Amino acid sequence: MLKEAIYHRPKDNFAYAYDDKTLHIRLRTKKDDVKKVYLIYGDPYIWENGEWQTEKKEMRKSGSDDLFDYWFTAIIPPYRRLRYGFELHDENDMLIYTEKGFYDEAPKDDTAYYFCFPFLNKIDVFKAPEWVKDTVWYQIFPERFANGNEKLNPKGTLSWGSADPTPTSFFGGDFEGIIQHLDYLVELGINGIYFTPIFKAPSNHKYDTIDYFEIDPQFGDKQTFKRLVDLCHEKGIRVMLDAVFNHSGYYFAPFQDVLKNGEKSKYKDWFHIREFPLQTKPIPNYDTFAFVGEMPKLNTENPEVKKYLLDVATYWIREFDIDGWRLDVANEVDHQFWREFRQAVKAIKPDVYILGEIWHDSMPWLRGDQFDAVMNYPFTNGALRYFAKGEVKASQFANIITNVLHSYPNNVNEVAFNLLGSHDTPRILTICNGNKEKVKLMFLFQLSFTGTPCIYYGDEIGMTGGQDPGCRKCMIWDEDKQDRDLFAHVQKLISLRKTYKAFGNRGELRFIETNDETNHIAYTKTYEDETILFVLNNSNQELEWTLPLHLKGKLLTNLWTN
Amino acid sequence: MLKEAIYHRPKDNFAYAYDDKTLHIRLRTKKDDVKKVYLIYGDPYIWENGEWQTEKKEMRKSGSDDLFDYWFTAIIPPYRRLRYGFELHDENDMLIYTEKGFYDEAPKDDTAYYFCFPFLNKIDVFKAPEWVKDTVWYQIFPERFANGNEKLNPKGTLSWGSADPTPTSFFGGDFEGIIQHLDYLVELGINGIYFTPIFKAPSNHKYDTIDYFEIDPQFGDKQTFKRLVDLCHEKGIRVMLDAVFNHSGYYFAPFQDVLKNGEKSKYKDWFHIREFPLQTKPIPNYDTFAFVGEMPKLNTENPEVKKYLLDVATYWIREFDIDGWRLDVANEVDHQFWREFRQAVKAIKPDVYILGEIWHDSMPWLRGDQFDAVMNYPFTNGALRYFAKGEVKASQFANIITNVLHSYPNNVNEVAFNLLGSHDTPRILTICNGNKEKVKLMFLFQLSFTGTPCIYYGDEIGMTGGQDPGCRKCMIWDEDKQDRDLFAHVQKLISLRKTYKAFGNRGELRFIETNDETNHIAYTKTYEDETILFVLNNSNQELEWTLPLHLKGKLLTNLWTN
Repeated sequence: MLKEAIYHRPKDNFAYAYDDKTLHIRLRTKKDDVKKVYLIYGDPYIWENGEWQTEKKEMRKSGSDDLFDYWFTAIIPPYRRLRYGFELHDENDMLIYTEKGFYDEAPKDDTAYYFCFPFLNKIDVFKAPEWVKDTVWYQIFPERFANGNEKLNPKGTLSWGSADPTPTSFFGGDFEGIIQHLDYLVELGINGIYFTPIFKAPSNHKYDTIDYFEIDPQFGDKQTFKRLVDLCHEKGIRVMLDAVFNHSGYYFAPFQDVLKNGEKSKYKDWFHIREFPLQTKPIPNYDTFAFVGEMPKLNTENPEVKKYLLDVATYWIREFDIDGWRLDVANEVDHQFWREFRQAVKAIKPDVYILGEIWHDSMPWLRGDQFDAVMNYPFTNGALRYFAKGEVKASQFANIITNVLHSYPNNVNEVAFNLLGSHDTPRILTICNGNKEKVKLMFLFQLSFTGTPCIYYGDEIGMTGGQDPGCRKCMIWDEDKQDRDLFAHVQKLISLRKTYKAFGNRGELRFIETNDETNHIAYTKTYEDETILFVLNNSNQELEWTLPLHLKGKLLTNLWTN
Repeated sequence: MLKEAIYHRPKDNFAYAYDDKTLHIRLRTKKDDVKKVYLIYGDPYIWENGEWQTEKKEMRKSGSDDLFDYWFTAIIPPYRRLRYGFELHDENDMLIYTEKGFYDEAPKDDTAYYFCFPFLNKIDVFKAPEWVKDTVWYQIFPERFANGNEKLNPKGTLSWGSADPTPTSFFGGDFEGIIQHLDYLVELGINGIYFTPIFKAPSNHKYDTIDYFEIDPQFGDKQTFKRLVDLCHEKGIRVMLDAVFNHSGYYFAPFQDVLKNGEKSKYKDWFHIREFPLQTKPIPNYDTFAFVGEMPKLNTENPEVKKYLLDVATYWIREFDIDGWRLDVANEVDHQFWREFRQAVKAIKPDVYILGEIWHDSMPWLRGDQFDAVMNYPFTNGALRYFAKGEVKASQFANIITNVLHSYPNNVNEVAFNLLGSHDTPRILTICNGNKEKVKLMFLFQLSFTGTPCIYYGDEIGMTGGQDPGCRKCMIWDEDKQDRDLFAHVQKLISLRKTYKAFGNRGELRFIETNDETNHIAYTKTYEDETILFVLNNSNQELEWTLPLHLKGKLLTNLWTN
């Protein structure tokens, strides 16, 4: 057995509290190297005759990626304490793996050899809102969803869909438009809306906030927004807003004050200014988002800034009863701020959803003290590379997805925000070169996968467009121009996800077959005595597929054709 | 190159902020497998002609353990942001390692492949008090250090040193006794005292607190304690107390109230009670330390308990100006409590030292939001196994120590609490079977090692004793019975550590030779242009050792013989 490949470290994704009673333990070994793994475990304080008392439980292989196999077991320690090690077997050998290294025999004269989960304290358990697990999100870019009140149109507003969007064009989308089309969303079946920013800001995307306490007048007023949230709630739809707390806009009053008064400004410590006077070009002499002088980074370590932003965060929950915050550029803001953010918002609404925008490995934000989830771009990339771009074959896709699942605890995976596209990426139909069948497969995978899926407005009716601004075209409301077949497909998937527990988050996913020649994958989702089998043929060829033998004698239903 | 052995994951001990400007990046590879490693890195937002712009820096091998080599480099990213990957070479091949896996060539069309340290936010930097790096601690078990006021003797007090201690014996040690012997400690050269608990408690060890706001009368009153702290401070000695916050004693008033009033007690949620009425035997039906019914676990998730304990924590700092808290059974208390603890105590004394008692891998407590350090038992065990017990040879000892150093960030290592013995372990001279030379070697290693060393009272004069109560004998004050030669040895080492920066924490340690036949080790400590060479002969044979050639032409001083 290859010792160098064997990995475990307590907490994070390898040993974590799944709920108030249960610990999940994982182990990584070299792929196809180990035949059986047992967990050796016990309460650290139970001894007899000078020997630590342990039990043994077989672990199961929970998946594999390119290089590794992963092993899993769940344990309910009666006194909430656990010391443990691993007993690994291949055909010939046995190996004991502990925190102190490898042994031929499990040492019992001391618990200090062993890994330790010292105590399962409830308050430390990662707990995301339950409702998120059953939510299908819909992302709305408010400027482009629907124009319901032309009186609010900004100067120079173009008529709806009359042109391809540019970085600076306006089409007048607003809250009234969204309200008028809520029934469309209900028909589709979604039950959560994620709005990109709605606060006062000069751009069409509103990521350059001027005032975090005001709604941009092009979208409507607070009353209209309140009506929108209330209507959503009546229809069982949750509402998530976008918080741009990493940086402000250029016209944010405190930044304007610093521009004007320099070192004398009482807001000079609201930003990270390297020297006075401020220079915005060529490279700003203050910290910014990327090198964009118009987006000065906020000093979230400054107690005044912290208070201001936490007041913003709680204001929109308290006054408008929103259900979630999506946090823009969340990875560049300090962890301490997010810890206090979580305490503040959960104190007034315990089941609010906190979603960070992070594109890379996000374990340090998902330990229970900061976010509930991140935008699962590793999932996105895997799906796009397999279904849309054909860059990887079936087996590598399964490896990527298994790797994503094993990068985080299961309770984190269950609320991961799984998107295929967004206002920051080209439209999925465009990436698929217009091949609708590939889009359909992707939706099937997304909507049957672990996590909380999000559909970018218009993807369900086959809208197209490249990198932004291309992906931010006006929503098409003329049914003749909508791909109603694709709409029906997504609608059906959402309905299946809602109807069958195994289809959605309760179902545990296992890849049962991948074939690089035919490029198909097959996986099951199992919940209690119900198993749903998925076979996805990601090729242009017909696929003949024989149901696995062990399904014989069981009640079979074709969920797709009914 | 063995891909399965290659490991990196951002934050924790592999990528961390060393200070407000500097990131440390580490990589792990299979031992003796890789010849050269370069860090490929850049600001994520610097692009030219559609290509991400990167730089390259060679990493150096910072050490090896049983199975792995570790590579290290430090980077100061001008905009505090970093994306990075690794370029690995052996004789024939080159391999690029990124967050998304391995490549033959470094991809430059996207930064998403790469590992990410998104932003170096100062508030998240692990920061322990500077003074700890230059402190040599002395641990005092107050009941056994010196009896300076016989009027305070508890009932049944035995005369000083007249008998071997039992679990229940008293010898009347007190604050007055410590005050009378401060000059002894000054003579030895220590500049920090760690006191095991001093609060009101019935036992001789005081880990069964009755009242966290009162000093146990056998030690003296608050005035005397204040005088002790002030005298220590006058002599440049810091004072650390022991906080037993995981559990209370049986006679802690709130627990007595629950015992008496059961479910009606207003303190019923101060503990973790599984059912009423309370049963202490055979296994308590409430959570306890181990299965000790007399030590009920405190419910540190309960805001009332939290407030009470944080009031305790701040009270002794505010009123008595103590410099540190050592936290008993720290690993079984929730992380959230420790986060609030840190905020509370650092708010009133920013350079207070927070030391957790954790015997196992402690990364989850050392991320900057909880502790400054843990008791470094992995160091202890390594040293005892090599020097005292002869269980491992020179090379394995170096492996163990290198592994310990690479388990944590460097700024964590610099304040690690390195002990050889304590009130919880047999005396080091006893473990060495009375072989003083081995004890001397151990002290040399401990006092020249990275971290903050602690001497258990009496070890410096050759006291003996097995597992407690054996290791808790009365301090010997009769100089004729003290091993003054050993005292002088420790005194000299402390003095060298204070005199030469390279000797102590500023010096960077490298093992330059280990020999399993002669069982000797050689290492250097380097600070700026000063290098100290240590050769430790852990055998009964004489060792002939030739100075390394590259020392030729440099100014040499024998620090030991002067």
